[in-house]
Amino acid sequence: MYEGRTGAEPGIVFGHENMGIVQEVGPGVGKLKKGDRIVLPFNVACGYCRNCLANKTGFCLTVNPGSAGGAYGYVSMGPYSGGQAEHLRVPFADFNALVLPEGKEHEADFAMLADVFPTGYHATELADVRPGETVVVFGAGPVGLMAALSAKIRGASKIFVVDKVRSRLKLAEDLGAIAIDFTATDPIEAVKEQTDGGADKGIDAVGYQAQAGEGKDETPAVVLNQLVHAVRATGRLGVVGLYVSSDPGAPNEDAAEGKLLFEIGTFFEKGQTMGTGQADVKSYNRQLRDLIIAGKAEPGFIVSKEIPLEEAPGAYEKFDNREDGYSKVLLHP
Amino acid sequence: MYEGRTGAEPGIVFGHENMGIVQEVGPGVGKLKKGDRIVLPFNVACGYCRNCLANKTGFCLTVNPGSAGGAYGYVSMGPYSGGQAEHLRVPFADFNALVLPEGKEHEADFAMLADVFPTGYHATELADVRPGETVVVFGAGPVGLMAALSAKIRGASKIFVVDKVRSRLKLAEDLGAIAIDFTATDPIEAVKEQTDGGADKGIDAVGYQAQAGEGKDETPAVVLNQLVHAVRATGRLGVVGLYVSSDPGAPNEDAAEGKLLFEIGTFFEKGQTMGTGQADVKSYNRQLRDLIIAGKAEPGFIVSKEIPLEEAPGAYEKFDNREDGYSKVLLHP
Amino acid sequence: MYEGRTGAEPGIVFGHENMGIVQEVGPGVGKLKKGDRIVLPFNVACGYCRNCLANKTGFCLTVNPGSAGGAYGYVSMGPYSGGQAEHLRVPFADFNALVLPEGKEHEADFAMLADVFPTGYHATELADVRPGETVVVFGAGPVGLMAALSAKIRGASKIFVVDKVRSRLKLAEDLGAIAIDFTATDPIEAVKEQTDGGADKGIDAVGYQAQAGEGKDETPAVVLNQLVHAVRATGRLGVVGLYVSSDPGAPNEDAAEGKLLFEIGTFFEKGQTMGTGQADVKSYNRQLRDLIIAGKAEPGFIVSKEIPLEEAPGAYEKFDNREDGYSKVLLHP
Amino acid sequence: MYEGRTGAEPGIVFGHENMGIVQEVGPGVGKLKKGDRIVLPFNVACGYCRNCLANKTGFCLTVNPGSAGGAYGYVSMGPYSGGQAEHLRVPFADFNALVLPEGKEHEADFAMLADVFPTGYHATELADVRPGETVVVFGAGPVGLMAALSAKIRGASKIFVVDKVRSRLKLAEDLGAIAIDFTATDPIEAVKEQTDGGADKGIDAVGYQAQAGEGKDETPAVVLNQLVHAVRATGRLGVVGLYVSSDPGAPNEDAAEGKLLFEIGTFFEKGQTMGTGQADVKSYNRQLRDLIIAGKAEPGFIVSKEIPLEEAPGAYEKFDNREDGYSKVLLHP
Repeated sequence: MYEGRTGAEPGIVFGHENMGIVQEVGPGVGKLKKGDRIVLPFNVACGYCRNCLANKTGFCLTVNPGSAGGAYGYVSMGPYSGGQAEHLRVPFADFNALVLPEGKEHEADFAMLADVFPTGYHATELADVRPGETVVVFGAGPVGLMAALSAKIRGASKIFVVDKVRSRLKLAEDLGAIAIDFTATDPIEAVKEQTDGGADKGIDAVGYQAQAGEGKDETPAVVLNQLVHAVRATGRLGVVGLYVSSDPGAPNEDAAEGKLLFEIGTFFEKGQTMGTGQADVKSYNRQLRDLIIAGKAEPGFIVSKEIPLEEAPGAYEKFDNREDGYSKVLLHP
Repeated sequence: MYEGRTGAEPGIVFGHENMGIVQEVGPGVGKLKKGDRIVLPFNVACGYCRNCLANKTGFCLTVNPGSAGGAYGYVSMGPYSGGQAEHLRVPFADFNALVLPEGKEHEADFAMLADVFPTGYHATELADVRPGETVVVFGAGPVGLMAALSAKIRGASKIFVVDKVRSRLKLAEDLGAIAIDFTATDPIEAVKEQTDGGADKGIDAVGYQAQAGEGKDETPAVVLNQLVHAVRATGRLGVVGLYVSSDPGAPNEDAAEGKLLFEIGTFFEKGQTMGTGQADVKSYNRQLRDLIIAGKAEPGFIVSKEIPLEEAPGAYEKFDNREDGYSKVLLHP
Repeated sequence: MYEGRTGAEPGIVFGHENMGIVQEVGPGVGKLKKGDRIVLPFNVACGYCRNCLANKTGFCLTVNPGSAGGAYGYVSMGPYSGGQAEHLRVPFADFNALVLPEGKEHEADFAMLADVFPTGYHATELADVRPGETVVVFGAGPVGLMAALSAKIRGASKIFVVDKVRSRLKLAEDLGAIAIDFTATDPIEAVKEQTDGGADKGIDAVGYQAQAGEGKDETPAVVLNQLVHAVRATGRLGVVGLYVSSDPGAPNEDAAEGKLLFEIGTFFEKGQTMGTGQADVKSYNRQLRDLIIAGKAEPGFIVSKEIPLEEAPGAYEKFDNREDGYSKVLLHP
Repeated sequence: MYEGRTGAEPGIVFGHENMGIVQEVGPGVGKLKKGDRIVLPFNVACGYCRNCLANKTGFCLTVNPGSAGGAYGYVSMGPYSGGQAEHLRVPFADFNALVLPEGKEHEADFAMLADVFPTGYHATELADVRPGETVVVFGAGPVGLMAALSAKIRGASKIFVVDKVRSRLKLAEDLGAIAIDFTATDPIEAVKEQTDGGADKGIDAVGYQAQAGEGKDETPAVVLNQLVHAVRATGRLGVVGLYVSSDPGAPNEDAAEGKLLFEIGTFFEKGQTMGTGQADVKSYNRQLRDLIIAGKAEPGFIVSKEIPLEEAPGAYEKFDNREDGYSKVLLHP
């Protein structure tokens, strides 16, 4: 959005990953109390529409009429201001807020519950990662690393992480994953050699802005198609890297409308399944919080820097350039 | 295969849908006895490889080494002669054969257990059709009709069937489905209007030989992309219509390699899931047989003609021309 | 409750199955509008506690503090007046109310959505009834009949219904089920003979007030233990017939504390699974409503009589005596 | 069986947990080769009966006619000699044998794949243990410890293990579990205090030979009923501790027939589910083997001693007395 690849207009307040202390509660609120430490799913949801009842809170039918799904500070996701501000209004607060233990402990870890940890976990849910399985994750950004962490929590026997940024691959290795630098090795062959002819499950944590080589040229379907080949017949793909139906900056006309050359032939012959979409954060955040409290998960390891809110503009630029130390930044009001 | 769209060589014995009486049993056979009436899954499977153990008998790793999945009389599916012959050798017979009740009853219904009924059912399993849901099925050929029948068995509240052949649509209506002639009506709009903004689940029983208009020109991705639009956000697609990784007769180079322009952007934004692949017949055929015996399913209604084996060649041609009365033909030896 | 087997105190307003027209909405209500025709789950639920989020609305942690689960007009289920009155207050109305189509159509069918239809369906969900399976249902009261109807909707191949009341068994037969009068036939043997050595799945729609013979003596564990024997090894039992932890009228001290002699040895050797508990109505009522609207389910066939509210007291007595025509009575305000 | 609590007759060759090198293959064997290192599920299974096809290999309908399930060297489990011998005949060898990597590595770990590790894992599968959940395991014998290990692999946030033998509880603590000595603490209260009013899931790894206090008196239903209270409403119980339908040594007549006073009232009110039965080893052993190979699981930690086969008789006695160092003994031929 910051790059102008979406329809974001000047004046929008960004910030879909929000954590804080309840300052005031409205009249319809029953559970939350002033002073509670809470973290909010990036999705805004009503709790009673058909999709929310099915735990698909990322596709709420109430909060963004005419569409499915709302979010704070997000283009086309409804009228909800983002959290890069002093205060934030939380609709349907009893439903949306997740209460955290009092105090300051695990702050960086809990902040990951707003989006990236549940999103990485969602990928493993879409791919149905089970104990003993092998998993390949494309992308070692925050979401890819969270997917690798989630696969580890779910008992995967081997986790491969594919990227080209050394510092990111290093974090994957710290988790116990096998890092694959796709500029040095063919990821498909590397995975096949170290598994039963392909990983059991695969995760796309890259999306349409995928780059195939060392340069910055985008080849939007490359990760999706590599996944099909790197995963074995009957395997499942969990796709959480973003694909969009309208991309003004796309390399060609079809891509501009979200149409990509997908190797459906091979996908079908292998009998694979693909699950997609933004994470339904509420389906996972309580359990992930409990893993943090119990000391079984420390997702905050991806936080590279904590800075005051007013330094945000400069940080966006550095993140965009993939500068060291700006892979995941925490802003404090 | 008959059309020369695959690598089938002269001399191949076709026939992957087989039913008959056991004439002789080999030394390793324990369950089957001479005289048993049996029906065979079109997939040949070993029963002990990793995929068979996971009930993915369509992807057996033993019977067609170097590949996943074997079949009788099928190109690239291993060295198994087809059943359009007087006799048929059945490997791993205890595992593969499904025993039927003695006698002649339900013959046409039971013949459907070799492929089309389980394949149609597989589509509803991939799409996870549940009681009360709405389902749209593209294609009213044998598999599409079996998918509609399966959706009915599973308790769907509304079933839409999309095709352009009137006689096929009529059969769908006889099942209680709502027929949509795509040459007369936009199927996406028709489905959206009669559902909660889109069907809950969708089935592709057409595949890459899809035709968009009244003519015979193929537009390989049209059904897949219409499904994405006709199914609601969070819905699931079951794709059993064939897609191939190599199609010499394709309309363009990408399609020749099984790469189609898929609307992944919309698919992702809607958070949909797609399951694919040939049916693992053994996962379903016993239960479907029991429904036939109990009088709860009569899949044989799609059998349009029963002829002697020697008339097969002429029948192939008539099927190809979509001639009336040749939608599904039973051959008797 | 009416019999004094619970701690119900004089003055309690009964009525946990409620349907009506919205007369007025409170300030926190967003979806519901005055004039909407609605039906209410008998469970009162908040929509945001941990159990509600997991779709276990029958075990809401908010509405009946210190316990799990609330209901209208029910002993020990919270401070919610029942609907056998002119008006009813509905807490968390957006979450709890299911909106029905305008008008009067399907009134008796929709009334079944408050409790018995979802409860019968819940039994089939606990037992995981799948297409082609055989199912035995103990009890042909309203819930047992709804379980049989639900098994039919889910595609069961054979459904057995066990009871001793002829008029109830007749209704089961009308559904296409096989009726077993346990005073005339041993239900275990009857089921085994007509299945693969036992039904695939079993349902207890009787509970602790079970009667073994022709008389009215209660033998609280008889149905549970017969189920274990009538269902095959690896089968699943769905238990929705009520068992309680405190029964002042029980035949012995253990039973008074809800302890029954359960044949756990056989249950374990057969590797069976048992799911229990009151229905989470909200998990099923929308889909079941849609089946009614689509003409695929007519649960109202169990309604034996419709009377004005003021005749309720007499009707209770007649129901208790299992008088003909009082198996399921609809009260109109 | 060694104690005479079953109908075991003199001359039976015990030994249901078997690992070794293939010495010879019969004519019907295709996959296995002489020299392969293999481990065998304790269950003998055919691979093609209805239950085997459903992955319920513990309930094979072929190998022990008239019953469901066979095993090596086990009373009432068919005519299969046990492995406490120089050689062992393996029926349906391609289906039953799991091939291990060549060499000697992980020997003690792999030996656990025959029974206790899959059985412990089966308990977590029956209880459906998911990431972030809390689990209470009753029993810290080999199966209980394997259940705790399995819960850890599946990402449980807190695992409680209840027993009274200090050395066993120590092993549980080494795994990261919270040990509860039931002779010192009320396990129900201890679990409730450290969880959300009860564990999410519970496992019975004790069975009918349960002891309530410090002595050796058996109170067969005590663990089952404590589980019901220690697990929260809507929770699931996985019962792998043995319950039998005939126990000549039982404390009373009902127990002798496998009937125990089960608190079904509370179980029902809490809406709990209970899954039971011996493990279907083949459903889990490949994945668990892969976790061992990958260094993610070391179940051999429970092996307290390795001795030559001829010392087995003395070891049985010591095991029976719960002597230190005889909790799990490996016999070498």
